[in-house]
Formats: sequence, C-alpha cells, structure tokens
Amino acid sequence: MPTPLIEYTDASPEVRAVYDDIMATRKTDTINNFWKTIARDPVTLRRTWESIKQIMGPGALDPLTKELIYVAVSATNQCEYCVASHGASARKKGMTEEMFGELMVIVGMANETNALASGYRVEVDEQFR
Amino acid sequence: MPTPLIEYTDASPEVRAVYDDIMATRKTDTINNFWKTIARDPVTLRRTWESIKQIMGPGALDPLTKELIYVAVSATNQCEYCVASHGASARKKGMTEEMFGELMVIVGMANETNALASGYRVEVDEQFR
Amino acid sequence: MPTPLIEYTDASPEVRAVYDDIMATRKTDTINNFWKTIARDPVTLRRTWESIKQIMGPGALDPLTKELIYVAVSATNQCEYCVASHGASARKKGMTEEMFGELMVIVGMANETNALASGYRVEVDEQFR
Amino acid sequence: MPTPLIEYTDASPEVRAVYDDIMATRKTDTINNFWKTIARDPVTLRRTWESIKQIMGPGALDPLTKELIYVAVSATNQCEYCVASHGASARKKGMTEEMFGELMVIVGMANETNALASGYRVEVDEQFR
Amino acid sequence: MPTPLIEYTDASPEVRAVYDDIMATRKTDTINNFWKTIARDPVTLRRTWESIKQIMGPGALDPLTKELIYVAVSATNQCEYCVASHGASARKKGMTEEMFGELMVIVGMANETNALASGYRVEVDEQFR
Amino acid sequence: MPTPLIEYTDASPEVRAVYDDIMATRKTDTINNFWKTIARDPVTLRRTWESIKQIMGPGALDPLTKELIYVAVSATNQCEYCVASHGASARKKGMTEEMFGELMVIVGMANETNALASGYRVEVDEQFR
Repeated sequence: MPTPLIEYTDASPEVRAVYDDIMATRKTDTINNFWKTIARDPVTLRRTWESIKQIMGPGALDPLTKELIYVAVSATNQCEYCVASHGASARKKGMTEEMFGELMVIVGMANETNALASGYRVEVDEQFR
Repeated sequence: MPTPLIEYTDASPEVRAVYDDIMATRKTDTINNFWKTIARDPVTLRRTWESIKQIMGPGALDPLTKELIYVAVSATNQCEYCVASHGASARKKGMTEEMFGELMVIVGMANETNALASGYRVEVDEQFR
Repeated sequence: MPTPLIEYTDASPEVRAVYDDIMATRKTDTINNFWKTIARDPVTLRRTWESIKQIMGPGALDPLTKELIYVAVSATNQCEYCVASHGASARKKGMTEEMFGELMVIVGMANETNALASGYRVEVDEQFR
Repeated sequence: MPTPLIEYTDASPEVRAVYDDIMATRKTDTINNFWKTIARDPVTLRRTWESIKQIMGPGALDPLTKELIYVAVSATNQCEYCVASHGASARKKGMTEEMFGELMVIVGMANETNALASGYRVEVDEQFR
Repeated sequence: MPTPLIEYTDASPEVRAVYDDIMATRKTDTINNFWKTIARDPVTLRRTWESIKQIMGPGALDPLTKELIYVAVSATNQCEYCVASHGASARKKGMTEEMFGELMVIVGMANETNALASGYRVEVDEQFR
Repeated sequence: MPTPLIEYTDASPEVRAVYDDIMATRKTDTINNFWKTIARDPVTLRRTWESIKQIMGPGALDPLTKELIYVAVSATNQCEYCVASHGASARKKGMTEEMFGELMVIVGMANETNALASGYRVEVDEQFR
C-alpha cells in the first residue's frame, strides 16, 4: 500500500513545525500528500523542505520560471504526482494556459531531439567542447 | 560510426535552403552537427527545423526561459549533445552563471523528488485530481 | 485493456509447474499478477522465473540487499508495479521502515546528482578512468 | 576504469564455448566488448547469451524488425554502446539508410508524445482500458 | 486535474478539420483523448497530427513495424497512455499475441543490456566507432 | 565546454572549508571533479555535501549497501560520471568483484522487468495496494 500519511493532528512537534512553515511560506492551509508522506522521517522532511524553500524562492530566476522547469523535468520522468502538484503550483504562480501549452511543446521537442541525438550518435561540436 | 555530417558545400539545394534559414534566424555562420546529421533526410531536416523555429521563438514564454526548459529536459535525459548545444544557446540568449546554477539545483531537486514520489507511492492529492 | 491474467486453475501443466516452483521457493500460496501476465508466453515465464530465482537467491550479496537494489531501480524508473511488489518482498525479507527511509533518501540523492553531473558536464576524474 | 576485457586467448574453456557459439551463430570472427566484459561472470555470460540467441532469432517477428526495436529502446535510454553495436547489427541484417531514417523519426516522435501524454495527464480512453 | 478534453461538438472549425482528417485517415469514428487534449492548442494539434500522419504511413518500414517501435519506446518510458493507445493501434494493424510477446521480451532484454553496458562501462568497439 | 573546475588553491575560504571536510571524512587527499564543479556555487556545494555526508554515513543500512544502491541508480540513468565515481567508492568500502557482478545482474533484471510490467500493463495486486 502507499506509505501512510501523517496528518497535522497526529504529527510530532518537530513535524508540525515544518508543516507550519510550509503553510506560512505558501500562504495556504493545506499540506500536500508528498510532505505528509515523507514526514515519517522527520530529518528528511526538514532537509527536503529547507532545500526546496531556498531553491524555489526568488533568485536570478523568478519563482514561476522555476516551477516551469520543475514541471518540465517531471513530465520527462513520467512522474504523475509531481506533474500534478507542480502544475498546480505553477498555475498559482501565474502560469497561463498559453504558457502551459508552450511549455509542453518544448518539453516534447526536447525529448524528441534528445533521442535523435542519441540514435544518430551526433558528436559534440568543436565550439561546444 | 556516428552518422556522417553533410557540409554546406556538399548539400543539395533543399538542404542548403534550410541551412541558410538556420543561419539567418540564429544570426550565426555555423551549422551545428545536429542539423548536419539529420540533413541526410531532408524531409525530417525541414520539419524539425520548422518546428523548432516556431516553438523556440517569442511567445507567452520568452526565448531564454524556453532554452532553460530545453536544458532541464536534456540534463534529466543524460543527453550530452543537447546539454552542450542548448547550454550554449541559453548563454547566448542571456543565461548568466547564477541563472545556470539555479537551473541546475532545480533540475537536481526535481529528479530527486520525482524518485521519492514514486518510491513512496504518494497518491495525488484530492485537490489536484 | 491490461493483458489478461492466467489463473492457476486455467493454466497448462508447464505453467502450473512454474507457479508451483514460485510458491514453493517463496513460501507463499499466491502468485503475483506479473507472473500471471507473462504466463501467456510459457517460454518467457520459465526463463524469467529461472533467472530471477537464481539472481535473487543468496550469494555475495544477501537477499535483502538484493531487494533494496530492485526497489531503487524501480523507483528511478517510475515503475509503480515493481515498486509495489518488490517493496512488499523487501519488507518480507526484513526491510524495516528505517531502512526504507534511508533507501529512499539515497535513491533521491542519486537521481539528483546524476542530473547535476549531466547538466554540468562533469568529466570523469583521471583516477576513475 | 571500465571493466577489463577477457580476450579469447585468456578465456576459460566455459567462456570460450560461449564465444565460439556467438561467432558461429553470428557468422563472424570477432567478439564484441559487451561479451568480453560480462565474461568475467561466466554464469551471467551464458545466461545472457542464451537468452539473446533465442530472443533475437526468427519468430513471429523477423530478425531485422527485432534489431530495429533494440535500437529504438537503446536510443531512448541514451545508451551509446547499445546504439552503436545494435545499429551495426541492424545494418548487417539489412537496415537501409532510409529505414534508419524512418526508425529515428518514430523514436523521436514517440519520445515527444510520451512526454506530452504525461505532462497533459491524458487519461486512458475507455476503449483502451 | 487532467487537461479538459475538447469534444467534436465543442470544437472550432480548425480543430474539427483535424479531427475529420484523423477519423478519415484511421478509418474510425472516434478521436482519442490525446488529440482531444492537445486540441486546446490548435497549432500544436495540427503540427503533431501532420507529423504523425506522415511518419506512421507506409515507407521503407511498414505501418505495423512502425507501431511496434512506438510501443517499444512507450514501454521503456513507462508511458501508460501511449502503451495503451499504440498497443491498440498495433493490434488493429495486425500485431498478433505472439508478436506482442516477442516484442516484449526484446524490449525487456534491451533495457537489461542497456543498464549492463552502462554499469560495466563497456567501451564502444573499434569497428563501431 | 564542461563547467570549469575550482581547484583548492584557487578556492575561497568557504569552499576550502567544505573541501577540507570532504577529505577528512573520506580519508583522502583528493577532491573529485563533481565537487570542484559545483563549487562554483558555494551554497549548493555546502548543502549537497552536508546532505550526502549525512545520508551515506552509517545508519540502518551500512555504508557499502548505500554505495551499491547509488551505483544501481546511476547505471539505470546511464550516468557515466556517477557510475565511475560511486563504483570506485563502493570498491573502497569493500565491494568485491563478485558483489559487483551480482549487483549488475539485479540492476539489469530490474530494468528488464520494469519495462515488461509497463508494456504488459500489469495491474498492482490487491494485496500490494
């Protein structure tokens, strides 16, 4: 069976502290199943959340661009959960349907040409070495 | 051996027409090995180039964001050629080293959590269904 | 539709012989859907079972370590069926929840650094060549 | 370093017996590096060769079609070695450059639409369930 | 939630034109969910359909062989939707259960040896370079 | 070109501190190219190293088992760099050639059956749900 979820009411204080930070940072009152699952291992929960909080925040790339990249990787890996959850995050951060359509065609085309470059054994150009 | 390259001087008029359009569109005087390879099949060359030209041009997403997405997929797929060539394109379109560093950590983290979601069999949240 | 399952009562003698060996070897009275599916091709059923029986038995690596490796590959490949069935096998062979948590973080981290090594185009160190 | 190769002159009788069968079956006097590598484990060498010999021989699918399928999987997985060696086998069995070109565009398109189906979360049609 | 489907009765004239061509080409009166999904972006719908129509038609490779290759890539990528829909197409074009069984063992074996070649770091043979 | 390496002598104090900790923890006087590459982004260097140090240390799973799992994922992903470097680490921690051979056949078999489970669309057994 899928790993059991740890709900807020059943969580230890250290898990609740992470849940509280997730909800405050994301301005929401729900915790996704991903976090409720890895909460079984509080050290991993905290490390993963701290990493994601830092990585996905504003930087040289804006938060929406970061979510688009996340969705691109997840679709490439056929990860249903991550496509669903990061797709929702991207929409919340401003991804329009037009942006989503463009994202998808690029992801499709990149997967196509990745396979072509492999199958044809294309050698890296001198200027890219 | 890798598929032989078709150089401009040896190319048929229809292949040269695509090469000319690639160089004009990209404001460069070189053709990458990828195009010189698939040029063996002029129909595929033209269709692939026309698709990429349309897809990677300006739209709801800007050209740099599109290249970042291309690099993200290519790194996920371990495609050495595409990481090299689209990494170069991204730099030409304005990707700074700081942006590249952020891109990489997101790609790494997405690949990590994709595997975690699979291994833990996390079920898609009700609100994302 | 998914490939139909061949139940024991409907199976030919040669398929039953493999089913019997699976149940005897694994000390169980059920046959997983995987075997009931590939049983449509008795030669493949026998070859696959004989290979797995030999490979997963005791050797230089103990049976539990072998199952952990199987789960690691399956989570990387996003194979829902194999994560579910080999996760169950691993638990039966002694995988604790703590071991599972450690397995998952390594699988996550390996997928992360695999993508980083690709995206950064890290060259193999002289001493590893 | 890559796993050392076991050359015919250094091989044990049981390894030589497999090498002899490979050369006789394939009507060649060379052994590929793949076999010289896994020969370090003679049981695996024999099992893998026996499986491939049976699988790749004539059946409901002809040998050339089988090699095309092998190349398609290898290009999808970015396996440089397998693309090179099975591409050579396919040519030896009759793959023309035109066939290779068609193979590649299908492999590219399949990788593209696989990613689209995942990213768009397309649900399996009622009639395919 | 999965991307909403655009049914024929709700479709714009340009989308209906593609749907009509799909049904005429495939001699069917249904449109798969894949097309109903990407129809949200009519340009992508047309380009993808035109490409697939051209690619999957008769050529140096026959239509059935082409579908087998499509299924092989889709199973390798764990794409449930594409395995289901292209498996159905392959059956419609003449794939027998025996052919399907042979296809599967080749796909399985190719995925196995791809991983072995990577893990053992097998170097490409001189004659394949 | 591959990302430039940051050598110890050219490194900032914060990068040197991580390098020192890597060498002390691993009882070695060399730094792998992976670390010299991601050192361009000191925050990522520190976070990745701290994570790996914690994850790969002793726990419910012993350090050798952890390295075997790392190699299994890396071979599945066709990551040449990670196969090379973690293969070397595994040998340093006690992986014998016999263990390596067993690891490889399991990785190969898991990749094979992952593809079979996908292609045959095997449904998860009731008892594993």
